[in-house]
Amino acid sequence: MTTAEKGVVYLVGAGPGDPELLTLRALRLLETADVVFHDDLVPDEVLARVRRHALVTSVGKRCGRPRITQAGIHSLLIESARAGQSVVRLKCGDPLIFGRAGEEMAALRAAGVRFEVVPGVTAALAAGAALQQPLTDRASAGKLIFCTGHHADGKDPAPIWSGPLPEDATLVVYMPGRNLERIARELSQAGVAGDVACCAISHAATERQSWVAARLDDVERVECGPAPLLLVVGRTMEPLLTGMAMPGDVVFPREVAARMQDLR
Amino acid sequence: MTTAEKGVVYLVGAGPGDPELLTLRALRLLETADVVFHDDLVPDEVLARVRRHALVTSVGKRCGRPRITQAGIHSLLIESARAGQSVVRLKCGDPLIFGRAGEEMAALRAAGVRFEVVPGVTAALAAGAALQQPLTDRASAGKLIFCTGHHADGKDPAPIWSGPLPEDATLVVYMPGRNLERIARELSQAGVAGDVACCAISHAATERQSWVAARLDDVERVECGPAPLLLVVGRTMEPLLTGMAMPGDVVFPREVAARMQDLR
Repeated sequence: MTTAEKGVVYLVGAGPGDPELLTLRALRLLETADVVFHDDLVPDEVLARVRRHALVTSVGKRCGRPRITQAGIHSLLIESARAGQSVVRLKCGDPLIFGRAGEEMAALRAAGVRFEVVPGVTAALAAGAALQQPLTDRASAGKLIFCTGHHADGKDPAPIWSGPLPEDATLVVYMPGRNLERIARELSQAGVAGDVACCAISHAATERQSWVAARLDDVERVECGPAPLLLVVGRTMEPLLTGMAMPGDVVFPREVAARMQDLR
Repeated sequence: MTTAEKGVVYLVGAGPGDPELLTLRALRLLETADVVFHDDLVPDEVLARVRRHALVTSVGKRCGRPRITQAGIHSLLIESARAGQSVVRLKCGDPLIFGRAGEEMAALRAAGVRFEVVPGVTAALAAGAALQQPLTDRASAGKLIFCTGHHADGKDPAPIWSGPLPEDATLVVYMPGRNLERIARELSQAGVAGDVACCAISHAATERQSWVAARLDDVERVECGPAPLLLVVGRTMEPLLTGMAMPGDVVFPREVAARMQDLR
């Protein structure tokens, strides 16, 4: 059985939010670590699994107002490990996807601090599971692409995708922001057809989960739920629009464009 | 606490192989289901978590010699659920990625059988964790792409990627086959530079894990380990070649091209 070792930093994926979707290894580490530094969006239900008397600190940098710098996080990790504590750095989803784990690993290496990475269920997988739609399909979706809309809020003019997007791809945009107009325009420019299905899902795999589906041409008009938000774009999402295959086998009228629907 | 419900089919991700990387929910379902139908590549260590007296059946279609057809799997799932059993359909990694879950969900919907999808840690995430390299990076890898080399063994002439591949992408090829020559050529044609780092990792996140790294121009000459195999291509893998940042902080000589290296 895994227990957290003194002087080691564990970069641990917290999964999508539901504590039942923690891995066994993540749970053991939360139950035995001395110190836990976590992202802001890790829900209380997950943090409840941390052992009593552990020091638990949020190092989130939410909404663009940094409470702590990335370098500050590195220092905390390194100093805690050097002080002989067992340290969990708890990240939403999987630590290696859009979580700046590369920078943290580089800092730990440079400091000579031992570390281990514990993968987790990334949000896209939880979204597909909640929506009951596959992310790949032998006939229509041979590729799955994760990208981030984090820079699409005006901070960075780089488009979300440059060049043509393969027709047989499912695209998942992490952190798309609630205004989907720019992403929709950029996807159109990348050759995505206007009738391709899109689904924006908020708080996937939690009690607060909600989603809305629309065709790409209409997606700029949908009202998304709050962050954490994912946008899934591709033919595999088509059944959400036609009401042919809804989660929970609820069948809705055809062409439920731009409709907000609670899953539970 | 989750227990498997009678008459319901659970499409469950078994994760990458290490039973510690099962989710809590997957474990509870394995501990309580009446029947488990699993892929061939789900290791014994995971199957050992299934409750005694459960009926456990492999429905793998390995090496192109089908033991059972996809339609046959659908019938087994539907008949077992209709007979009032709680059924787990256990898939390697995550059920919605390259696992034909879409077809199984469609068959279950058509038959009116209730089902639920339980996401899992997909192999790419376990590979990144084992290699201690990020899959995305703010500076060099804003996109992560999963595709499959399953059709690259001569069965299907479609290239693994058509059109230019973004420079800032990490590409993970599932089931690349052990002959990487064709994939390497197709990636070159998609504009991937010859000096981009590639890592072929076999049995990621298991005791038998091994990997070999090379630049794209050399990758056709590497000798890969056995399936399950993943090929990871991208600038984030560069430290594996330069020996700057090896898993376990072992430092190897620079330019360790085409070198097979056990991780444990």
